[in-house]
Amino acid sequence: MKLSEIAKKFNGKLIGEDVEIKSVSSPENAGEKDIVFIKDKKYLDVVKESKAGAVITKEKLDINKPQIIVSSPEKVFYSLLELLYPEEKREHFIAPTAVIGKNVKLGDNIYIGDYVVIEDNVEIGNNTRIYPFTFVGKDTKIGENVTLHPRVTIYKNTVIGNRVIIHSGAVIAGDGFGYYQEDGKHIKINHIGSVVIEDDVEIGANTTIDRAMIDKTVIKEGTKIDNLVMVGHNCKIGKNTILVSQVGIAGSCNVGDNVILAGQVGVADHINIGNDIIVTAKSGVGKDLKEPGVYGANIPAIKWNKWKKILIYLYKLPELFKSK
Amino acid sequence: MKLSEIAKKFNGKLIGEDVEIKSVSSPENAGEKDIVFIKDKKYLDVVKESKAGAVITKEKLDINKPQIIVSSPEKVFYSLLELLYPEEKREHFIAPTAVIGKNVKLGDNIYIGDYVVIEDNVEIGNNTRIYPFTFVGKDTKIGENVTLHPRVTIYKNTVIGNRVIIHSGAVIAGDGFGYYQEDGKHIKINHIGSVVIEDDVEIGANTTIDRAMIDKTVIKEGTKIDNLVMVGHNCKIGKNTILVSQVGIAGSCNVGDNVILAGQVGVADHINIGNDIIVTAKSGVGKDLKEPGVYGANIPAIKWNKWKKILIYLYKLPELFKSK
Amino acid sequence: MKLSEIAKKFNGKLIGEDVEIKSVSSPENAGEKDIVFIKDKKYLDVVKESKAGAVITKEKLDINKPQIIVSSPEKVFYSLLELLYPEEKREHFIAPTAVIGKNVKLGDNIYIGDYVVIEDNVEIGNNTRIYPFTFVGKDTKIGENVTLHPRVTIYKNTVIGNRVIIHSGAVIAGDGFGYYQEDGKHIKINHIGSVVIEDDVEIGANTTIDRAMIDKTVIKEGTKIDNLVMVGHNCKIGKNTILVSQVGIAGSCNVGDNVILAGQVGVADHINIGNDIIVTAKSGVGKDLKEPGVYGANIPAIKWNKWKKILIYLYKLPELFKSK
Repeated sequence: MKLSEIAKKFNGKLIGEDVEIKSVSSPENAGEKDIVFIKDKKYLDVVKESKAGAVITKEKLDINKPQIIVSSPEKVFYSLLELLYPEEKREHFIAPTAVIGKNVKLGDNIYIGDYVVIEDNVEIGNNTRIYPFTFVGKDTKIGENVTLHPRVTIYKNTVIGNRVIIHSGAVIAGDGFGYYQEDGKHIKINHIGSVVIEDDVEIGANTTIDRAMIDKTVIKEGTKIDNLVMVGHNCKIGKNTILVSQVGIAGSCNVGDNVILAGQVGVADHINIGNDIIVTAKSGVGKDLKEPGVYGANIPAIKWNKWKKILIYLYKLPELFKSK
Repeated sequence: MKLSEIAKKFNGKLIGEDVEIKSVSSPENAGEKDIVFIKDKKYLDVVKESKAGAVITKEKLDINKPQIIVSSPEKVFYSLLELLYPEEKREHFIAPTAVIGKNVKLGDNIYIGDYVVIEDNVEIGNNTRIYPFTFVGKDTKIGENVTLHPRVTIYKNTVIGNRVIIHSGAVIAGDGFGYYQEDGKHIKINHIGSVVIEDDVEIGANTTIDRAMIDKTVIKEGTKIDNLVMVGHNCKIGKNTILVSQVGIAGSCNVGDNVILAGQVGVADHINIGNDIIVTAKSGVGKDLKEPGVYGANIPAIKWNKWKKILIYLYKLPELFKSK
Repeated sequence: MKLSEIAKKFNGKLIGEDVEIKSVSSPENAGEKDIVFIKDKKYLDVVKESKAGAVITKEKLDINKPQIIVSSPEKVFYSLLELLYPEEKREHFIAPTAVIGKNVKLGDNIYIGDYVVIEDNVEIGNNTRIYPFTFVGKDTKIGENVTLHPRVTIYKNTVIGNRVIIHSGAVIAGDGFGYYQEDGKHIKINHIGSVVIEDDVEIGANTTIDRAMIDKTVIKEGTKIDNLVMVGHNCKIGKNTILVSQVGIAGSCNVGDNVILAGQVGVADHINIGNDIIVTAKSGVGKDLKEPGVYGANIPAIKWNKWKKILIYLYKLPELFKSK
C-alpha cells in the first residue's frame, strides 16, 4: 500500500516520499517496509531510532521519515491492522465429520469445521463460522456473522445474536449454581431458564456464563467480556460494558451500560450497578453502586516487610482508637 | 397440572379456583398459565400486579388469585421446577463415533455421545451419560447415574462416585503444580496420586481439580463446586461443602464439612479449615481456621476518591501511631 | 528395587536390611513394600508408627526400619517417583480420526490421538504427543518432546519450544482483549501478533495466554504456569518464573526471571516486575516493582465480627487523624 493511498483513505496529509509499506509494527520491531504510529511526543526518540519506513502522527515531526498527519493516529493504525490483515474468508463448508441433528436450519455461506456437534432444532444465520469441537445444544438460535472458535460449549436453548464472537473454551448456559437445603444436604435446583447473548458481544476464552433458574441471563449488545470471567445465573449485563479478565459476578446482578469492571473484580449476588460506573481492579462490590463514577477498594502491593507492620496496626485499629 | 393436584402432592391447602397451570415463573414474566411463589409479604404488590394464574404462599394473601398455602413455598416451587421440567431421558446409546478402549466395562442403559474418547480399563456404572468431546483417561472408574457434560477431561486413574455431575470444560486430575529446584531450574515432580470424587458432588464449568503427588485429592460426598474453581493437589474437601466460583485452594489443604467458601476466596497451601465455617467473598485464608463461625477480611468498594484518601493513612499507620 | 540399588544410585548409605521396595508413599498410607522420606525430625513419630518398609533420611534415625541416608531426602524421593513411575511411552501413532491439513511436517515418533485437528502449514518436532480433541491452528511450529494434553487449543501462528507441557483446556494465542472507542461503541482491534512459548515451559489446565496485537506475547524458558492463569496480550514473562493458580496479568507487562507470583495475584497493564521478586498471594501490583524482594498487601481472614469493627475505623481513618 502506498502512503498516498493511506493518506487519502483516512483524510490525512502525506509529508515526504510516497513509499510503499507492507505492514504495521511497533517502532522497536519495525523494518523498512513497516509503518508505525506515534501517540505522544515523548516517544519521538524511539521512533527516530526505529527502522520504520513511515510514521502516522497528529503533528508534523522533526524526523527524516515520510509522515502521514491525521487527527487520530491510533485509530488509523487500528484501521490499517484491519485493512492489511483482513479476516480470512472461510468458504461455505460443512465438514463431513460434523454431526448435525434433526431439524437444523442453516443459513447461507456457513462454515462448520471438523468434529462440530449440533443438536436438534438449532438455527444458524448466514455467514456464521463454527470451528472444530464446538458443541451447540438443542433449540439454540445463532445469528449471522457469528464466530464460534474451537471448543466452545453452548448448552441447550440459548439465543446468540449477530456478529457475536465466542472464544475457545467458553461455556455458555451451564446450570446456575443454586441449591436448597434439605436434611443438611444441598439439593440441586433445576435451572430451566436460558442465556441470551445480544449482537456484537465478544466472550473470552474459558469464560462461563450460567443459565437462569427461570427467566434469562442476558448480555446486552456491544458488551465485551475477557477471558476466565464468571457471570452467574439470572444476571443482566448492560450495553457496551467491559468485563475484564477473571471478573466474577454472582447470581441475579444487574450491571448497567458503559460499565467497566476491571480485572478480578467480584460482585456479590443481587447487586445493582448503575450506568457509567468503573470499578477498579480486584475490588469487591458488596452494595449497590448507583451514581456514575469510579469505585474501588484495593491496596497496591508494597514491600512485604512494610506491609506486615501496617497489618499489625490495621488489626488493632478499634483498640487503638478506643483507648483514647 | 391442576392446582388441586399440586396442593395434594405437597400437603398444601388450595384457596380459590382449581385452575390448570402449565409452568412456573417469576412474577414479572408470568403469564396466565404460570404459577409463582411469594417469599415475603414485601413482594405482595409485585405478585398482585403480575399476570400469574396462581400463587404458592405460606399465609393466605389478600389478592384475587388462586393460592396454595404450604409451609415452605420456596421448596414447593423448586420441586415444581423438577416435576414440570424433568431431565430429558437419554436412551441407551453408544455413538458410533465414540472411541472406546480395551477392557472397558459399561453398565446398563448408558449414553455415550458423539466423539467421546474412553481409554483402556475404564469402568462406567448404570445410567451414566457422557456427552460429546469428553475424554476419560485409562483406569478410571465412574459410578451410576453420573452426568459428564460435553468437553470434560478426566485424566487417568480417577474415581468418580454415583450421581456426580461434571460441567463442560472441567479438568479432573491434571498434574499437581509441584517442582523442586535444581541448579536454579524448576524440575517437575511426577504426580502419581489420584483424584476421588465421592457421591452427589457437582463440579462447575472450567473448574480444575489436580491429582495428588502421592495419595489422593478427595472431594467428599454432597459437596458442590461452582465454575472456575481451583482445587490443588492433595486437598481433602469435606462433605456438603460449597466452593463458590473462582475460589482457589492451594495444595494439601483440609477443608471440613458444611463449609462455605464464598466467591474468589483463596486458601494458602497446607491450611486446615474446620467444619461449619463460612469465609466471606474475596478473603484470603493464611492460617488454620478451627472454630465454627464466619471469617473474612474483605473491603467493599466505595467511591475511589474516598478510598484513595484512606489508603494514604493506611500506609502511614505505623508512623501515625508511633509518633504519639 | 532393592534398597542397596537406591543407595548406590543416589550416593546414599544403607543402614539395616536390604529389603525390596515397590513404591513410594506418604507415611500415613505406606505399606510394607513402600519407602517414605522424612523431611524434619518433628515427623519422627509419624514415621515410627508408619507401616513403611524403609525410610530416606538425612541423619540416622532411632527407629527400627531400614534407612537410606542421603544429603537431600526430598530430592531422592522425587527422583524415585520418576524412576518407579516412568512416563508411559506412546508408540508412533497417527490416529485415523485425526484431521491433518496440507503441508504439515511431522517429526519422528510422533503420537497424535483420536480427533485431533491440525491445520495447514504446521510443523511438529520429534517425539511430540498430541492427545484427543486438541486443535492446532495453521502456521504453528511445535518443538520436540512436547506434550499437548487432551483438549488444548492453539490458535494460528504460535511457536512452541521443546519439552513444553500444556494441560487440558488451556487456550494459547486467543485474541488479546483490545478495543478502541467510536461513537460510544467498542471496536475490536485486530490482533495480528503471536505467542511464543519457549523450551521447558509448563502451562496448567484452563489457563489462557493471549496473542499480541502486534509483536509477540512471550513465555520464556523454564517458566511454570499453574491452572486458570490469565496472561494478557503482549506480555513478556521471564525465565524460570512461577505463576501460581488464578494469577491474572493484564496486557503489555514485563515480568522478570525467577519471579514468583503467588495465587490470585493481579498485575495491572504495562507494569514492569524485575527479577527475583516474590508477590504474596492475592496482592495487586499497580506500580513497577524493581528491587528484588518480597512484595504484597493482603489481609488474612479473621473472625468476621472482629473484621467488621476494624472496617468501621478503616473507612474513618482520614477523619480520625484529621480531627487531632
